[in-house]
Amino acid sequence: MNEADFIAALRRLPLHPGARGLVDDGAVIDAGPLVVTTDTLVEGVHFLPHDPPADVAWKLVATNLSDLAAKGALVEGVMLNYPLGDAAWDRAFLDGLGAVMARFHVRLIGGDTVSLRGPRVLTLTAFGRDAPAPARDGARDGDSLWVTGTIGDAGLGLAIARRGYGPVMLRDAYRRPHPRLTEGRALGPIVHAMMDVSDGLLIDAMRMARASDLAVAVDLDAIPLSGDARAHGGEDRAARIAAATAGDDYELLFALPSDAAPPVAATRIGRFAAGRGLTLHDSNGAVPLPPRLGFEHSSTV
Amino acid sequence: MNEADFIAALRRLPLHPGARGLVDDGAVIDAGPLVVTTDTLVEGVHFLPHDPPADVAWKLVATNLSDLAAKGALVEGVMLNYPLGDAAWDRAFLDGLGAVMARFHVRLIGGDTVSLRGPRVLTLTAFGRDAPAPARDGARDGDSLWVTGTIGDAGLGLAIARRGYGPVMLRDAYRRPHPRLTEGRALGPIVHAMMDVSDGLLIDAMRMARASDLAVAVDLDAIPLSGDARAHGGEDRAARIAAATAGDDYELLFALPSDAAPPVAATRIGRFAAGRGLTLHDSNGAVPLPPRLGFEHSSTV
Repeated sequence: MNEADFIAALRRLPLHPGARGLVDDGAVIDAGPLVVTTDTLVEGVHFLPHDPPADVAWKLVATNLSDLAAKGALVEGVMLNYPLGDAAWDRAFLDGLGAVMARFHVRLIGGDTVSLRGPRVLTLTAFGRDAPAPARDGARDGDSLWVTGTIGDAGLGLAIARRGYGPVMLRDAYRRPHPRLTEGRALGPIVHAMMDVSDGLLIDAMRMARASDLAVAVDLDAIPLSGDARAHGGEDRAARIAAATAGDDYELLFALPSDAAPPVAATRIGRFAAGRGLTLHDSNGAVPLPPRLGFEHSSTV
Repeated sequence: MNEADFIAALRRLPLHPGARGLVDDGAVIDAGPLVVTTDTLVEGVHFLPHDPPADVAWKLVATNLSDLAAKGALVEGVMLNYPLGDAAWDRAFLDGLGAVMARFHVRLIGGDTVSLRGPRVLTLTAFGRDAPAPARDGARDGDSLWVTGTIGDAGLGLAIARRGYGPVMLRDAYRRPHPRLTEGRALGPIVHAMMDVSDGLLIDAMRMARASDLAVAVDLDAIPLSGDARAHGGEDRAARIAAATAGDDYELLFALPSDAAPPVAATRIGRFAAGRGLTLHDSNGAVPLPPRLGFEHSSTV
């Protein structure tokens, strides 16, 4: 699509009042203190070249909303930096963009379009308001580590998407993650620390511990696996380690005092203590750390 | 460079207090209403593959600050989406980033890094505060059209950068534009409409007229050319049309009542009137519009 057609299509999406109809070079956001987060997705790195464009749009928005969820924010809007290309791809992307924006009540604030030869590079910047904005460095000695939902579905889904067949539920967990915005709102004011699980449960748990200057012990047996994941990938130690290092879960990982129960469905998977580093155990005792805890190179600055 | 080294280098730049030391997935900005703008630069489209990386960093920041200048904003900070690659390129880019941030008192708020094979794609999002935020659609019948600085230097500079020799002053106008932040602050509260000249003086003047539902007449003889541009590119009608359609000037284009004088150095180049479209004239009368008024595909949404 050319730029004019693409922008005309964007104008039919829900626009933020500060977007000024997308006719201006700057948008105005007047919503009190803002939480801001940005993610770039690269074709061949963060999504597969044959992934449906509508799913790429979904994932681009959903991964950023997940960062807002981790701050307990309400969604104010998003800005999109988009490489124009093949018209069919662009149109399918716009369909997915409309779907994810409608699903999570997102308004477009602005953005930029460019021409690009080479792998597609898409950037979204998301703005949240009214956020308690817990950081990842606030966990305390003795806190429990909790996670929402289930872990590892997206990792299995990536393999299914690569292979082209397998349970659709798992494939969609990879392609169309659901940011935990409602849970984030409920958790934001009460957690000591919170982040979303994007690079892998173990690496993200270790990052929270490191930022908080603590050690964290994770119970491998406690890691919540979905029924689909158990049926498809098993639930032995290897399957659990695969789930905990696969990434793309977009669940919320948070620290609460050991005597507190979260106000949302979640699973207690570990415990913070004085010290440094991550340890793993299951009902048989200590489990050696796998060589790779998750993705090192996809994390947000 | 790897991500950890790059982020460590970013941490040595001036950080926004809301950046949380770049250890978090979200930044917090509490500065009242914000103006937000974003630009993506693509290697081979917006900069040349052999352009010095420090100049690419400069241009990436400066072009976004120019959009803030057009809103009369104070600079609150920037977010960077960066493709990690060749270590020497990354280090030189960081040097340029430090230079332009120091020059314009910019703080880093956050961002994202990715791995990328293919042309470099860099995105910067800039945040401004305390902005009168004039739009481009507020020009009125009878207003004069003004522009700061000189026009066409960057266009000549691009040709010089491609060729590899020629006046350095012009080449640097292309590679290291200076956003008119001070002028924007003075003009913001009094202009009827304002925008920066990024895609070409004529196309941007036409956009302002169109957004304001007016016609605009531009006097080709009045378009301010620098001494270097006159010496290097001439000042005949062809040279003036080349200057007015070349783009990358990053001067401020604004509308003021015909009896008002701007509080900053600027040149009156045209006049708005009822009607539609752009007309050109010089001392000999009407001048036919060139087939191309500027760049269509590089404009911000």
